[in-house]
Amino acid sequence: MPAQTNNPNRRSWIGYSKDSHFPIQNIPFGVFLTRENVITIGTRIGDHAIDLGALQELGYFADVPLTDDMFMQDTLNDFISDGKKTWRLVRNRIGDIFDKDNDELRDHKENRDRVIFHMDEVEMQLPVLIGDYTDFYSSKEHAINVGSMFRDKENALMPNWIHMPIAYHGRSSSIIPSGINIHRPKGQMLNKDTNEPVFGPSKKVDFELETAFITTDANKLGEPIDIKQAEDYIFGMVLLNDWSARDIQKWEYAPLGPFLGKNFATSISPWIVTMDALEPFRCAGPEQEKTPLKYLNHKPKSSFDIHLEVDLTPENGTPTTLTKSNFKHLYWSMSQQLAHHTINGCRINSGDLMGSGTISGPVPDSYGSLLELSWNGEQPIRLNDGTQRSFVNDKDTITMRGYCNNNSVRIGFGEVSNKLIPSYTATVKGSK
Amino acid sequence: MPAQTNNPNRRSWIGYSKDSHFPIQNIPFGVFLTRENVITIGTRIGDHAIDLGALQELGYFADVPLTDDMFMQDTLNDFISDGKKTWRLVRNRIGDIFDKDNDELRDHKENRDRVIFHMDEVEMQLPVLIGDYTDFYSSKEHAINVGSMFRDKENALMPNWIHMPIAYHGRSSSIIPSGINIHRPKGQMLNKDTNEPVFGPSKKVDFELETAFITTDANKLGEPIDIKQAEDYIFGMVLLNDWSARDIQKWEYAPLGPFLGKNFATSISPWIVTMDALEPFRCAGPEQEKTPLKYLNHKPKSSFDIHLEVDLTPENGTPTTLTKSNFKHLYWSMSQQLAHHTINGCRINSGDLMGSGTISGPVPDSYGSLLELSWNGEQPIRLNDGTQRSFVNDKDTITMRGYCNNNSVRIGFGEVSNKLIPSYTATVKGSK
Repeated sequence: MPAQTNNPNRRSWIGYSKDSHFPIQNIPFGVFLTRENVITIGTRIGDHAIDLGALQELGYFADVPLTDDMFMQDTLNDFISDGKKTWRLVRNRIGDIFDKDNDELRDHKENRDRVIFHMDEVEMQLPVLIGDYTDFYSSKEHAINVGSMFRDKENALMPNWIHMPIAYHGRSSSIIPSGINIHRPKGQMLNKDTNEPVFGPSKKVDFELETAFITTDANKLGEPIDIKQAEDYIFGMVLLNDWSARDIQKWEYAPLGPFLGKNFATSISPWIVTMDALEPFRCAGPEQEKTPLKYLNHKPKSSFDIHLEVDLTPENGTPTTLTKSNFKHLYWSMSQQLAHHTINGCRINSGDLMGSGTISGPVPDSYGSLLELSWNGEQPIRLNDGTQRSFVNDKDTITMRGYCNNNSVRIGFGEVSNKLIPSYTATVKGSK
Repeated sequence: MPAQTNNPNRRSWIGYSKDSHFPIQNIPFGVFLTRENVITIGTRIGDHAIDLGALQELGYFADVPLTDDMFMQDTLNDFISDGKKTWRLVRNRIGDIFDKDNDELRDHKENRDRVIFHMDEVEMQLPVLIGDYTDFYSSKEHAINVGSMFRDKENALMPNWIHMPIAYHGRSSSIIPSGINIHRPKGQMLNKDTNEPVFGPSKKVDFELETAFITTDANKLGEPIDIKQAEDYIFGMVLLNDWSARDIQKWEYAPLGPFLGKNFATSISPWIVTMDALEPFRCAGPEQEKTPLKYLNHKPKSSFDIHLEVDLTPENGTPTTLTKSNFKHLYWSMSQQLAHHTINGCRINSGDLMGSGTISGPVPDSYGSLLELSWNGEQPIRLNDGTQRSFVNDKDTITMRGYCNNNSVRIGFGEVSNKLIPSYTATVKGSK
């Protein structure tokens, strides 16, 4: 990769503030609906969305070997399938086109008007058609906190946890982009007084602060991925809110894991930040107490320094920041997750989504869910407006942000922000 | 539906033996590669595959409202999306075309040669692009057997089991059709002597005898499906072998459920038998001991009388039938499964696959897995050739068959048959 694309001194002829998540060093990929109601693949600089389909049609990618309609699609799957070499050529070329000294597009008003939109003019979509969604459980702090509440303190961490990145399969059909409202789920939960289940809207809707990575086609069925190559199959990362209904989850989860307590909604931020853009923020994760089996031995700096935070905003209210955490707290790295996922030969395709698991830090105000922050309702959180929350109320909006920062540049994810709305009300016959 | 399509007295001008799974009353749907290397949607009568793409092109569906390329596709998803009315019109029309008294195609050699293939000439594919795969756990006998072995007899059945159809999300990317070989998975398992995990090929590869149903687009995110309408969203059924590595599964499954112990392979039979074809075999399931919550109240005859059996065939050997079971033993019905799956608003799409869970009957020779049949290796099974099996050996082929039978007609699924081959051997650096 030419160092130029990540060069913190590079400036673009598109202006943006110095705290923007999307400087010319980021160049994320996403899919959006333009003001002309066309769906296209795009990137973003500052507050502007750039139509890569139109750019390609105008010939700006003539020197990059791409299929003719690579960016005139409604998902990034084909582009991601093309592999790391293509991702880099395209990202480098975009950096060049928008470099302040490059007049190719800068001085061509007609083309500029065709490819550049203000973010207010576009509607972000899911960036990929997600084939399979896996959610890991890789924060030790989170696993201990939840285990303490769902089981007991002595058995909080299962004996297997320290030996492998535990995970479960999630539901792809319920993954939505930022901005879509979510109905409070109904379901069964245990009434402790009667020891019988009751039916109704969940009383414990929660968020889970996560990131996720998106893969390219990596293997054939039966073939493991070597951990040393694992990162080559990761296209980039997004923020993920693994919405959870704690009361439904607690009653249903043994012995096969979470199901309806999770699959009512999972929301992600719409811009995929590439691993190349995140490279300057590579860092060490926590030291692993127990040396893992050899197939999980990764290189020393396998984590990334990504600041994460969550706001809760009541209807017509102001945001309260509930927690601040960091991706680098995760015990198991993405390389370890992918090597483990495929050690049995499980097939990984372009557009698969792998959630990190809730990213809780070591101190209480860095916990990644309300379950932990309010300690299952024992210590409600006070908001700016004086009200309290143990879990998410109807009409609350949960907003997650993430960014990397050093002395010279900020690379951000933007946000994933969704509002919880009341349960679906049309009568379901027989389920009252 | 005109009664004629299911009329047991109807005969076709395509001949077949009286014990064929595919009489003219069946008319299943699948996808195959023709001798000309074209992928098409098709149906089957006796030992002949029929190219529905070619039939449509030749004008035989002129009176059915279909998009022009409905059958010239490599998956059934769009056809299934079109809904029950279209499925019926098409199935009825196919029944008419192949009725022994209909000369439209019977007497047109050129067209016949173009649309009819012997089964030996075609290669069956996965019939749908599977978006999400859910696996239920709906056989009470199986849940009790496995719970007794994985936990203990006193806690075999979790308290939630009797109140709802427990399920977990499976992995779509590892679903394969009948005929594909499966590598023995490697992974972590617990060494009981050291109480530490060890790495290697699984020593307990097992099958699970299941059926699965395939859905059409059913709801928007947030909207439950009423149990009274649930069957309208089920296109049809297949046989499913939920391959399992019991040692990997046992070590990993707490607290989030099965993962690598399952997602190395799941195989399905290639022909989807429609619910209309199965209608004559509707019957009552087991009486439900505990009245479920109202959203799970289904009509009395919500099960189907489907005979199921499993053969194990060693390399160059003869088959031994290991078990005979029946779909009707399942405690929770497909309607209940679908109503439960969506009660929280989880979205169901065309091409989603829902496994029944292992279908174990009440007596030991009706158990649906080797784990149960050999009682975790304590009582190995003797094969025809005198050898024994506690679990599946390398080069063993597992074949599942299923069919419905009454005095006048047999409606079958054919089979799902896959061979277990040794673990993938290319060196995975660092994982020896």
